[in-house]
Amino acid sequence: MKSAQYQGNRTIGIDAGEAIAPGPGEVRLDVAYCGVCGTDIHIYHGAMDARVQLPLIIGHEVSATVAEVGADVDAVKVGEPVAVRPLQFGERAAFDKGFAHVGKNLKFIGIDLPGGMQSSWTVPAYTLHKLPEALSLEHGAMIEPAAVACHDVRMGEVTAGESCVVIGGGPIGLLISLVARETGARVLLSEVNESRRQLATTLGLATVNPMQQDVVQFVQQWTDGVMADCVFEVSGSAPGVEVMTELPNVRGRIVMVAIHPQPKPVNLFKFFWSEIRMIGARLYEEQDFDRAIELAAADRLCLDRLITRIGPIEEAQSTFETIDSNPDGIKYLIDCR
Amino acid sequence: MKSAQYQGNRTIGIDAGEAIAPGPGEVRLDVAYCGVCGTDIHIYHGAMDARVQLPLIIGHEVSATVAEVGADVDAVKVGEPVAVRPLQFGERAAFDKGFAHVGKNLKFIGIDLPGGMQSSWTVPAYTLHKLPEALSLEHGAMIEPAAVACHDVRMGEVTAGESCVVIGGGPIGLLISLVARETGARVLLSEVNESRRQLATTLGLATVNPMQQDVVQFVQQWTDGVMADCVFEVSGSAPGVEVMTELPNVRGRIVMVAIHPQPKPVNLFKFFWSEIRMIGARLYEEQDFDRAIELAAADRLCLDRLITRIGPIEEAQSTFETIDSNPDGIKYLIDCR
Repeated sequence: MKSAQYQGNRTIGIDAGEAIAPGPGEVRLDVAYCGVCGTDIHIYHGAMDARVQLPLIIGHEVSATVAEVGADVDAVKVGEPVAVRPLQFGERAAFDKGFAHVGKNLKFIGIDLPGGMQSSWTVPAYTLHKLPEALSLEHGAMIEPAAVACHDVRMGEVTAGESCVVIGGGPIGLLISLVARETGARVLLSEVNESRRQLATTLGLATVNPMQQDVVQFVQQWTDGVMADCVFEVSGSAPGVEVMTELPNVRGRIVMVAIHPQPKPVNLFKFFWSEIRMIGARLYEEQDFDRAIELAAADRLCLDRLITRIGPIEEAQSTFETIDSNPDGIKYLIDCR
Repeated sequence: MKSAQYQGNRTIGIDAGEAIAPGPGEVRLDVAYCGVCGTDIHIYHGAMDARVQLPLIIGHEVSATVAEVGADVDAVKVGEPVAVRPLQFGERAAFDKGFAHVGKNLKFIGIDLPGGMQSSWTVPAYTLHKLPEALSLEHGAMIEPAAVACHDVRMGEVTAGESCVVIGGGPIGLLISLVARETGARVLLSEVNESRRQLATTLGLATVNPMQQDVVQFVQQWTDGVMADCVFEVSGSAPGVEVMTELPNVRGRIVMVAIHPQPKPVNLFKFFWSEIRMIGARLYEEQDFDRAIELAAADRLCLDRLITRIGPIEEAQSTFETIDSNPDGIKYLIDCR
């Protein structure tokens, strides 16, 4: 077997690795593909060195087939294709109010525990979602980010006929746009990168480039003055935060998807004035994976178009370097077989 | 009759005024008491000179008796005591989604139209809420701010057994605390002014002074680590905005009650991390007045304790000056009879 390890200092090393026999309630997987997430890039940049233990086998966007099952595992069988919901729930805390996916003692597999960028990976059976045979394993590796998008749209309580604006057209912004469209909403994607914006256009999405047009005016026209029922802030940028409060109508929602490490100025007056709302959304719950698999299996998420390139695990370092140097790219998969 | 008019330059003049006969759908009131709101103080300071037309009869926290009814008015009779919901709904806009109380074409009576600080006041009949005979007219003048508090607590979806923190113990913060307590919540009020904090303590509220204690640590202990289910930002201050995101638990809510004219730095990361929410709340709907009257009639809002002083309309200028110079005061009423 082999594994890709973050070793600090922008280095992804390849190691022979070691297959771990599954204990009770565990499953050993033959990993097929592992997508590279923005978080993996942050780790690679050293931005999470205070949190991760080196060397770390990174990766958490995984498709795999079951290789071996431990005792007490009935839910999956050897040979079945699966996606992994990479959350290890810790002890319950009253603070969590039952929402274990954002609980105080949650460990994220691939950040706090060894991840999926390895050919053989042992995980708790409860993290697994069976994939339909018709879904390719390449698409299977897109289920995790698609589940993020399904969670975000669900948290935004988007309903058919509503107008949504998605600020930021990276992989998650594009997937949110597509999932919201499947919910029956009208969707406008705002993206500064022309290549990404054009890709979104070819997927049938309405788009605007905020470097070229006034987004508030655009949304006014696009909605006949009604403005947006739901806005997704996915850009992580100060201009994104500045415009997000200008777009919702009365009691419109803003879903805070992006990670903003530092406080940013927010127009709180608009919250008061039009009774708008902001909803934080992080990761996913079980039902979001179910919905992502359903939409992917029905080929509603244009996944072929979102996969920029697939590279072998041996070239993981070069893939990370490519991602850093190519702002036009969307999703890169690592072939871990 | 007589009226108190804002004439610009921190001047409240007294004018003989003119009683206006009620047209169809209108009612002429004999005003009893009119409370002085923070907004009236802003107007007095000149902060809203761009919005108001001088001279302006200010005031919108009114108790009155019906003096005369126009054609087509069946809902109230001469002599009945009433409170006024000072909203004139304009033309509906799709942007409003049916929420006329924060609609695009709303006119606020007492800011955009002549207000209630006069002995005779003519208003649309639909603005009136009948007061129970048992409720004093002094308390009746507190129904409008109490309705704001009922709206805020309702928007925060506070339920029995929840822990609420109210940041800011002026009239609205105190009323929110009392209404939340009536909803069955545990309530902690954070207030920097010792006199106001001590008043809250004598009303049976748990309190903390953020100048003297660390509010986050205090809430941790007060909730056994569970933290707050709902936080009300009523202070309008930068420290209030800074602490508000530190207090909620997973999916906890922040109700944005205060007016923050300028954008302020907000910890957006906490929204993401614990899936917290922020809900803008402004003014009130009909049901909030009903609830406020119900609570006031049942003597659940300690209204006697919240009324600092009642002064005659002839001394309105001096009352406004006193409010400016006395940060310990809570609610001042103007006797308009």
